[in-house]
Amino acid sequence: MSGKIYVGVDLGGTSIKVGLCDEQGTLLHTYEGPTGTEEGPQVVLDRIAQYVKQIVSDSSYTWEQVAGVGAGIAGFIDLESGIVIRSANLDWDNVEVKRELEERLGCPVRINNDANVAALGEAWSGAGRGVAHVVCLTLGTGVGGGVIINGKIVEGFRGMAAELGHIKVVPDLEAIQCGCGQIGCVETVSSATGIIRMAKDAVGRGEATSLSELSTLMAKDVFDAAKEGDEVALRIVKRAAHYLAKAMAAVAVVLNPQRFIIGGGVSRAGDILFDEIRKVYKLNVPPAFAEGVDIVPAQLGNDAGIVGAAGLNLN
Amino acid sequence: MSGKIYVGVDLGGTSIKVGLCDEQGTLLHTYEGPTGTEEGPQVVLDRIAQYVKQIVSDSSYTWEQVAGVGAGIAGFIDLESGIVIRSANLDWDNVEVKRELEERLGCPVRINNDANVAALGEAWSGAGRGVAHVVCLTLGTGVGGGVIINGKIVEGFRGMAAELGHIKVVPDLEAIQCGCGQIGCVETVSSATGIIRMAKDAVGRGEATSLSELSTLMAKDVFDAAKEGDEVALRIVKRAAHYLAKAMAAVAVVLNPQRFIIGGGVSRAGDILFDEIRKVYKLNVPPAFAEGVDIVPAQLGNDAGIVGAAGLNLN
Repeated sequence: MSGKIYVGVDLGGTSIKVGLCDEQGTLLHTYEGPTGTEEGPQVVLDRIAQYVKQIVSDSSYTWEQVAGVGAGIAGFIDLESGIVIRSANLDWDNVEVKRELEERLGCPVRINNDANVAALGEAWSGAGRGVAHVVCLTLGTGVGGGVIINGKIVEGFRGMAAELGHIKVVPDLEAIQCGCGQIGCVETVSSATGIIRMAKDAVGRGEATSLSELSTLMAKDVFDAAKEGDEVALRIVKRAAHYLAKAMAAVAVVLNPQRFIIGGGVSRAGDILFDEIRKVYKLNVPPAFAEGVDIVPAQLGNDAGIVGAAGLNLN
Repeated sequence: MSGKIYVGVDLGGTSIKVGLCDEQGTLLHTYEGPTGTEEGPQVVLDRIAQYVKQIVSDSSYTWEQVAGVGAGIAGFIDLESGIVIRSANLDWDNVEVKRELEERLGCPVRINNDANVAALGEAWSGAGRGVAHVVCLTLGTGVGGGVIINGKIVEGFRGMAAELGHIKVVPDLEAIQCGCGQIGCVETVSSATGIIRMAKDAVGRGEATSLSELSTLMAKDVFDAAKEGDEVALRIVKRAAHYLAKAMAAVAVVLNPQRFIIGGGVSRAGDILFDEIRKVYKLNVPPAFAEGVDIVPAQLGNDAGIVGAAGLNLN
């Protein structure tokens, strides 16, 4: 096969996922293996290099066609030097990932944090394909974000741009504390964690809801109950959507994106969540920031991380 | 003289200001003349071309050294085509400024809105010189903004990025309507208009303040009274600073800028305003967004518009 190829690595605490993308960002092959975090960074880096070499040699491409290798890692990263300053789920401190992998692979390596990389994946070949100004929000345990302008990640002074979960939108009198130390962050209500908390609070207060019959509570249970017409569950979903939309309204006047892409487990709630987000967003921005702007679900699912990591070497 | 030169035009409703900058953004010469809006766009464009040719021929540079001409214009502009869709203070609709000026001058012309251009000026050779991630806020009749990343204006999907005055920060129950149609925009409290309104409200309520002795009220009067210890004036200044800092906190987690630059008439209030902004900002962001981040006054004053317009042709 002709053309360049891009290798992406999604480095998680339990598994390493490696993928091969063509120049259009189409994911051609993937390979997944255990991380083996307990063996320490050097062994993990050896393993990544081995997986990368393997996936290329198993493909119909040659090593010479590899434009570069990118890796997405959860943690605090010095983007320029490619050093992982601290990653909690790998238990790494000051690991020179870029240098170590470049030595092992002999090709350019770039790394970035998992939220930025997932956003780049969606912008390159997912729900943001062909759109120049894209903002992604990932609703999972927390609320992650990524801003992609003209195909490039907006990184900020210390690589901390797009921490969209920490936009403060809940009024002080209703706000609870966020893991970041602030109060009222959108993450406290619009994440899976926030939704479960609101559901448990309602059950604890003895409100009339089908959720009180469940022994464990997941965000999905709340959405399912809301879809069946449970008033309490519906109120919780609307609250999560409401504050997310308010945060998006703030992002809109700062960046004027054309498309918001919403992914992560919570986004699987579907129309019940998206309809409310779209309604509240429109009510909270001047009209010119809503015209031609759309709010759509992510398309790549878990592959966004691999694809976006591959895309780090695009320009 | 050797090197390239950059010509900037600050096109206002009453006067046209033209300036010549060197490659470092130093403003070498300026020229100012009347706009003559009433004579219509073609005459105004002729006049701009004349002023531009004049200032270059009066300098020690040659026309061949001109890298390009930029113009900052208040209004809604299609940046790519360089068409002023609507400018209220010029009373222009769909004027092809870029094409018309390129025909008259025979060199590249770029235009942008006045707030973006002022931000670029400060980032290039004012308070943001040498800083890669800069956010500017201009506190005047409204609150304008500009975001400059690596020397480039962040424009957004429809050129409306950095409308920072419309970040909604005032809680609904305290909020008043903004000119944009929304309620609670930071512009409603942190602009000169907002400050004067709050002062008039206090006087109208019969609060004990030296401001009640004045026949007309300007924002400067409020700052002067606050500096002299007037409690009511002080409360108003703190409120303006408080909500501005809250808007800046939202910008911080979206863009992670290294420096905030605050300009415009209101910023001349000095320490009484800046001390409060810095305090409230720090209280409203996770610590990593405050470390190494500074909040400083603009340096170029009214020249920011000319310098930034000149800088539009930098890359």
